[in-house]
Amino acid sequence: MQMNPNKDTRLCISMSGRPGNFGLRFHNHLYEQLGLNFYYKAFSPKDLAGAITGIRAFGIRGCGVSMPFKEASIALVDELDASAQAIQSINTIVNTDGHLKAYNTDYIAIAQLLRDHQVAKDTTFALRGSGGMAKAVASALRDGGYHNGVIVARNEATGSALAKNLGYSWQAELGQQRPQMLINVTPVGMAGGAEADDLAFAAEAIDQAEILFDVVAIPVETPMIIRGREQGKRVITGLEVIAIQAVEQFALYTGVRPTPEQLQAAVAFARS
Amino acid sequence: MQMNPNKDTRLCISMSGRPGNFGLRFHNHLYEQLGLNFYYKAFSPKDLAGAITGIRAFGIRGCGVSMPFKEASIALVDELDASAQAIQSINTIVNTDGHLKAYNTDYIAIAQLLRDHQVAKDTTFALRGSGGMAKAVASALRDGGYHNGVIVARNEATGSALAKNLGYSWQAELGQQRPQMLINVTPVGMAGGAEADDLAFAAEAIDQAEILFDVVAIPVETPMIIRGREQGKRVITGLEVIAIQAVEQFALYTGVRPTPEQLQAAVAFARS
Repeated sequence: MQMNPNKDTRLCISMSGRPGNFGLRFHNHLYEQLGLNFYYKAFSPKDLAGAITGIRAFGIRGCGVSMPFKEASIALVDELDASAQAIQSINTIVNTDGHLKAYNTDYIAIAQLLRDHQVAKDTTFALRGSGGMAKAVASALRDGGYHNGVIVARNEATGSALAKNLGYSWQAELGQQRPQMLINVTPVGMAGGAEADDLAFAAEAIDQAEILFDVVAIPVETPMIIRGREQGKRVITGLEVIAIQAVEQFALYTGVRPTPEQLQAAVAFARS
Repeated sequence: MQMNPNKDTRLCISMSGRPGNFGLRFHNHLYEQLGLNFYYKAFSPKDLAGAITGIRAFGIRGCGVSMPFKEASIALVDELDASAQAIQSINTIVNTDGHLKAYNTDYIAIAQLLRDHQVAKDTTFALRGSGGMAKAVASALRDGGYHNGVIVARNEATGSALAKNLGYSWQAELGQQRPQMLINVTPVGMAGGAEADDLAFAAEAIDQAEILFDVVAIPVETPMIIRGREQGKRVITGLEVIAIQAVEQFALYTGVRPTPEQLQAAVAFARS
């Protein structure tokens, strides 16, 4: 964070039901490292419309949007970027002279990770999950030209709706299928949850897959990721998702893109 | 300011037409010195009602209110402290669980300075000025039991209205009167103004007065204060007003009252 705030310091914020420390530590650390006169503050507003009004009134430059505000914010902004339009869910608002444009940098991050890890377009995959983040991941896959996939979700209503909207098929369980890429977008493997020690897919499916992609970031080394690493498979972790979406937000707010080294240091700081 | 902001960091802000650095430097310096998890940010909102909505929505703890928002904010808060009620002008909003109570710490500061400097109740005085701050000063005098005064103001409309409301008499010029205390609440003597080098009262009146009180804080040593000091008179400066009103705000926001030494250091830092 800036050591000497002054009247020209610009404010960026986050809004979420349960604020954490990652985002504010990540952004404030990079502001300090890059000498940017910004400050980042986490909020848990009681009144979403009032908060958006406040963003306009105070000229707050940027706002990270988390649950439970990702869909409800849509009606309150002025413009949706293609990333937010694609999935009707936003996680980033950029305020340019009172004009609020909303983005979904989760979607942007997933698309970038598929490119960075050179995942072939014809890769067969199963995506487990049907919540908001699953929508972002599945949409990025669909828009990236990955057509050989299935949505696996215990919840038939949300699972089949997500699959149908994107042209995928839905099934409640993976069964005997053995896709090349397994993607977990559920809380399975997340610290503190009921399934913290569980594999997101059956051990046999993991052992026969080539790429394991987990959006769970706490811990980064989920049971599925650990099992994949032990076998030398390609893994894509939730930490990569978090880091890339955060750096996209950072660049949208400040116009500055940190180097990979700066990004790595900021992520390490933010998680410490 | 806090070196390690986190999700529990509380925000205090200021709203003014032309933000300065004093308030945010004063408050952030004391937060750091006292180990308080707060951050202070200056804003110049375009939309006052939207800003108050934002204070509520974000749970912003406190807000300093400067021109041109001091009167218009009254209708937007939930409760007026006696200090704000007395003069129908606010400079401080405290948000306690969504309940906004407004104060006028200028009024509080003036009342305290009259006590601290042991100004006798029967002191004759002339107060020059008829703006918002003149209202705060004259009201504190009236409520403090100082009845032997006149309001001197070139503007008959505002000057006579102020005098009448408080039970004082108004006159356009001081003339041949020689009050014991001269109080300047105009921009005369203020750096950068058209009358920066002028005495706020006639030299003869200054030389025969006992107490010289100037609310101008930039510079602290106005021509009137300099002339009074040279003659060994009692002086009350604008810096004392600023410092006391700021510490009152600080105590209202944080519940913590800095020591005189901490206050002095914070003022020195904020002015540097």
